[in-house]
Amino acid sequence: MEAAEQTDPTEPPLPPLVDHHCHGVVRSELDPAAFEAFLTESDAPAALGTTFFDSQLGFAVRRWCPPLLDLEPHCSPARYLARRRELGAPEVTRRLLSAAGITEFLVDTGLPGDLTTPRELAVAAGGTAHEIVRLEQLAERIADTSPTADDFLAGVTDGIREAARTAAGFKSVAAYRYGLDFEPDPPDPGAVHAAAGRWLGRRGQDGTAARVTDPVLLRHLLWSAAYTGLPLQLHTGFGDPDLRLDRCDPLALTDFVRAVRPTGCTLILLHGYPYHRGAAYLAAVFPHVYADVGLTLSHTGARAGAVLAEMLELAPFGKVLFSTDAYGLPELYVVGARLFREALTGLLTHWVAEGAWSRRDARRVAALLGADNARRVYGLSTPTHRDG
Amino acid sequence: MEAAEQTDPTEPPLPPLVDHHCHGVVRSELDPAAFEAFLTESDAPAALGTTFFDSQLGFAVRRWCPPLLDLEPHCSPARYLARRRELGAPEVTRRLLSAAGITEFLVDTGLPGDLTTPRELAVAAGGTAHEIVRLEQLAERIADTSPTADDFLAGVTDGIREAARTAAGFKSVAAYRYGLDFEPDPPDPGAVHAAAGRWLGRRGQDGTAARVTDPVLLRHLLWSAAYTGLPLQLHTGFGDPDLRLDRCDPLALTDFVRAVRPTGCTLILLHGYPYHRGAAYLAAVFPHVYADVGLTLSHTGARAGAVLAEMLELAPFGKVLFSTDAYGLPELYVVGARLFREALTGLLTHWVAEGAWSRRDARRVAALLGADNARRVYGLSTPTHRDG
Amino acid sequence: MEAAEQTDPTEPPLPPLVDHHCHGVVRSELDPAAFEAFLTESDAPAALGTTFFDSQLGFAVRRWCPPLLDLEPHCSPARYLARRRELGAPEVTRRLLSAAGITEFLVDTGLPGDLTTPRELAVAAGGTAHEIVRLEQLAERIADTSPTADDFLAGVTDGIREAARTAAGFKSVAAYRYGLDFEPDPPDPGAVHAAAGRWLGRRGQDGTAARVTDPVLLRHLLWSAAYTGLPLQLHTGFGDPDLRLDRCDPLALTDFVRAVRPTGCTLILLHGYPYHRGAAYLAAVFPHVYADVGLTLSHTGARAGAVLAEMLELAPFGKVLFSTDAYGLPELYVVGARLFREALTGLLTHWVAEGAWSRRDARRVAALLGADNARRVYGLSTPTHRDG
Repeated sequence: MEAAEQTDPTEPPLPPLVDHHCHGVVRSELDPAAFEAFLTESDAPAALGTTFFDSQLGFAVRRWCPPLLDLEPHCSPARYLARRRELGAPEVTRRLLSAAGITEFLVDTGLPGDLTTPRELAVAAGGTAHEIVRLEQLAERIADTSPTADDFLAGVTDGIREAARTAAGFKSVAAYRYGLDFEPDPPDPGAVHAAAGRWLGRRGQDGTAARVTDPVLLRHLLWSAAYTGLPLQLHTGFGDPDLRLDRCDPLALTDFVRAVRPTGCTLILLHGYPYHRGAAYLAAVFPHVYADVGLTLSHTGARAGAVLAEMLELAPFGKVLFSTDAYGLPELYVVGARLFREALTGLLTHWVAEGAWSRRDARRVAALLGADNARRVYGLSTPTHRDG
Repeated sequence: MEAAEQTDPTEPPLPPLVDHHCHGVVRSELDPAAFEAFLTESDAPAALGTTFFDSQLGFAVRRWCPPLLDLEPHCSPARYLARRRELGAPEVTRRLLSAAGITEFLVDTGLPGDLTTPRELAVAAGGTAHEIVRLEQLAERIADTSPTADDFLAGVTDGIREAARTAAGFKSVAAYRYGLDFEPDPPDPGAVHAAAGRWLGRRGQDGTAARVTDPVLLRHLLWSAAYTGLPLQLHTGFGDPDLRLDRCDPLALTDFVRAVRPTGCTLILLHGYPYHRGAAYLAAVFPHVYADVGLTLSHTGARAGAVLAEMLELAPFGKVLFSTDAYGLPELYVVGARLFREALTGLLTHWVAEGAWSRRDARRVAALLGADNARRVYGLSTPTHRDG
Repeated sequence: MEAAEQTDPTEPPLPPLVDHHCHGVVRSELDPAAFEAFLTESDAPAALGTTFFDSQLGFAVRRWCPPLLDLEPHCSPARYLARRRELGAPEVTRRLLSAAGITEFLVDTGLPGDLTTPRELAVAAGGTAHEIVRLEQLAERIADTSPTADDFLAGVTDGIREAARTAAGFKSVAAYRYGLDFEPDPPDPGAVHAAAGRWLGRRGQDGTAARVTDPVLLRHLLWSAAYTGLPLQLHTGFGDPDLRLDRCDPLALTDFVRAVRPTGCTLILLHGYPYHRGAAYLAAVFPHVYADVGLTLSHTGARAGAVLAEMLELAPFGKVLFSTDAYGLPELYVVGARLFREALTGLLTHWVAEGAWSRRDARRVAALLGADNARRVYGLSTPTHRDG
C-alpha cells in the first residue's frame, strides 16, 4: 500500500520501520473524553470552547486513520469515534497496527493503564517486540517491597542486572522527575544510601511521595544503567506539564554525556523539541550520543517535515532514530509512522531533485533512519523484510 | 479588495480581523528619522552606512503601503515619505487604517507620545475599540500622586478595580522591567509595602527611578490583575534593548503559570520570538494559556509564514490570537494584518493542497486565529461583519 | 561558471565574496581519517558503523568538489580521496580555492597545524588577504616567554597594540575557554595581575595549563582589543565539544554588548547556531553588533537556505556578513561559498517571485551580505572585481 502511494518516480522507497520507543495501547473501549486526552500532553480538559482535536496531531489522526476504518479522511471526530465503537477496540487495534508499517517494537513497559503487552503489540502488528525498562518505575516497584534502604539498593542492583539480561535497553524520565540539570557524576554511595532512606521514610507517610524525584537517586539509577552497557534512552524536550520545559533542554545533559562516555554506554536523546537542534549537535560531536524523532513528529503533524529537517542539519545520518512514542491509542502508531515516512520522503525527494543529494544516498539514509540505525544501536537481528 | 487578491480557488477566505494587542498612532507629521525609528526595536539610529528600511519590516512596509498612497510597491523610502507628507498624517492614517481589514482593536493605552485614542483608531478604521490597561503605567501614574506607600497601594487596588470595570484586559511589561524569571507566588504583603516605600523614596530623589522595576511590585501588579479574572497579556520574547532577551523566554513563566491557574485568570503570551515554540507549548499544556503572533510577524516580513508555521506546531488552534502590536505608524496596522493574512493563507493553502488538512478545517482555523479566539477570550460580542 | 548556473532570469547575480572569517588549509597530504576529521566538530572518530561523510557537510563536499577534480558529483568518498591523492595537495588547493569565487580573505591565523599563510591562500585563490589576530593565541604565545605577570601584561599590551597596526581585526574564542556568560565589565587591574600570576605559575608546573581559561584574563583580552577600535569577532554557538553549547548563546553576551558600546568597538558574532536568531536580534537592536553565517551554512548543507532565512528575519541587511570559517580543507572554501550563493539566491529569487521584495532590493542585499558589509565594517578598499 505504501508503494501505491509513491507515484513520484523520484521518491526513494522507505523500508519497514523499527520503532525504538513506544508503549502499549489501551485494551478497553475509550469514551470521547478519554480518547481526546491521549491527543495532548496536557493534564486537563481543553479550555472552554476549544478541543484537542483542533491541533496538528488531531488533524493528522483525522487524515490517516479514518480510511483504515472505512471512512473518509478528515471525517468529523464524532463520526470517527462512533465507527471506532462500532468496530470495537480489538479490531481497531488490529487494523491500525497492521497498517503502520512497523515490524519491530521496542516497548517501554513503565506506563500505567490497562495496556497491551509488547507481545500483544507484536501480534497485532505482525512483527516482533522487545522490552525497554523504565528505571524510575523499576525503582518504585522495588521500593514498594523494600523495608530498608539496604533492601532497596540491593533490589535496584539486582533489578537492573536482571533487566539487562533480557531488555533491549533502559529509559529514564529524570526530565519529568527533576529536570536534566542534575549533577553529572555518579553520586557518592553514602549520599545514595541517605537519599534512599529519606525517600522510603516519606513514602511510608505520604502517598504523594510514591514517585522517585530525588536527584541523587535518579543519578544512581542512570549510572547503574550506564554500567550495564545497554543503550539508555533519556526523555528530553517537551512532554506533559509535570516537567518544566526549559529544564529539559538536552544540552543540560552535556556534562553527564561527557562523564558517562568512558562507560561505553550509548545515550539516545528522545524527542528534544523545541531543543532538537541541540540534541542533533550532541549526536554530532559525541560518538555515543544518538537523537530520536519521537513525539516531535506526531505532535507537529503537517509540520513534521520541517521539524525533521531541523534535526537533519547537524546530526550525522548514522545517529538519528525513528520512534512513534505511541501510547494508549493505536492511532498514534499510524500517525507516527505515516508522518515520518511522508516527512522523510518529502525531504529526500526535494534534496535529490535539486541535486544536493544523490538518489543512492537518499535511499541509504532512509534505511538508516527508519530501521538500520536502531538495529545497530540495540543489536537487533538483521531485517526480516516481512510486510508491515 | 482582499477577495480580488485571492485568485487561487483553493485558498480559504479570511475573516475581518480582531487585533487584540495594539497601540495608538502618532497624530502629528513625522520627519524621516522619526519614521525610521518606528521600524526598529533599537533605541539608536542605524549604524553608519545602514538603514532600518533595509530589514524585513522595512521591505514589508514598502511592499504593502505605497499602493494605498497611490505609489508603486517598493518605491524608494524617500518617495514614500514625500508622498506621506503631501497627503498629511490624518489622511494617511485614514487610508491605511481603513485598508487593514481590522474591525476591532484592543488598545494598550500605556505608551507615551501624541497618539490617537482607541476611539480615534476605531473611527479611522471604521471599527470598534476597547482598552487594555498597562499595569506598570497605571502604577507609575498612581505613584506620581501618592505621598506614602499606603496611599500608593490603596491607589493601585482602586485603580485596578476601576480599570477592570471597563477594560477588556490588562497588560504587563515585567519582561522589560525585570525579566520573566521572577518568583512565581503572590508576594508577601509586608514585602510589597516595604518595596513600595523604597520605590517612592527613590522616586522622590532620582528622576531615573520613575519606572517601576522592583520585582516584588511587579508581582504585586500581576497578581492584583489576575484576581480580577480579566485576561492578562504578558510581553514575552524580543523587544527593545531595555530587555535582556534570554530573560524573556516565556518558559521562564512556567511556575507563575502554574501558580496563577487556580485564580481562573487567562494569560496571553505576546510575541514570544524566538521562543515562540515554547509559548506554543505552554498554550498546549495549560488550559488558561494563549499565544499571540504580534510583533513576530511584522518584524519577520517575508518570513512571516515560516514563523507562524512554527507557532502552529504545538499550539492548539483554539489558542492562537492575532495582533499587530502596531505603534506609532498606521503602516504597522497594514503590514501586521497583510502579513498575517498572507502567511496564514499560504500555510493553509499548502496543507490543504497536500491533503494534510481539509478545506473545511482550514476555513474554520482561519476564523479562529483571525477573530474568534480573541472574541471568546475577551468576551467580545459576535462579529458585526462590517467592512474593514 | 556561476553565471552559467544561473539560468533563471529572476535570479539576482551575486558578487565576488569577501570571506571575513577563515583559516589556512593543510599544506601536506591527508590520509582518509585525517580528511574525515575535518568534516566534523567532533574530537573523536565516528561511532562504529557510521561515518562523518554521512552528514550534510559530507554530502555538500561530495556535491560541489568532485567536478572540480574532474569527477562526477556525489562520487564515493574513496574515489574522491583517491583522486585527491593523485592530483596532490597543492594542485587540489589551487583548483578548489580558485573556484570558490572569493576575492578577499580575512584569515584567523591562531589555529595550529601546517597551514597555508594568508598570503599563500590569496595567491592560490587569485585574491588578497588580511590577518585577524586571535586573542587567546596571542596571550599564550606571550606567556611562553614571560617570566612574571608584569612581563606578561606588558607583553599583551604591546602585542595587541602591535597587532592593531596591521591586522584587520581581532577574534576571541572565550566561548571555548570559559563560555559567554562572563562578567561584562573590564576586570579590575589588580584582579588581572593576580590572575596572570596564578596562570603563569600553573603553566610552569602543568602542561595542561597551557591554554588561557581564566575568565578574568579572557575579559582583559576582550577589553584590550575593544579599546583599539578594531572590529572584534566572537565565536558564538556550536563548535567542537570543548565548549558547552548552552553557554555559547550569543544572548549571554548582552551585558558585555551594552558595556562595550561606548568604546566604539564593532562586535561580529560568528556562527551562532542554533542561537542565530538571538544573534540577529542583537544585530537589530545594537548599532555596533553584526552577525555572521560562518560554520552554520557549511555544516547544514542542503538546509543552508532554511538556516540563512532564519538569520534574515530580524537582522537588518546591513548587519549580516559572509564567511566560510574554512579550516584545513580547501573543500570547505568551495562548500561555504557555494552554499551561501545557492542559499541566498534561492531565498531572494523566491521573495522576488512572490512580490515580497523588489529585484533591485534583492540585488542590493546580495551585494551587502556577500561583500559590501564586510568592506564597510573592516574598512577594506572598494572591490577590485577581479576573477575569483
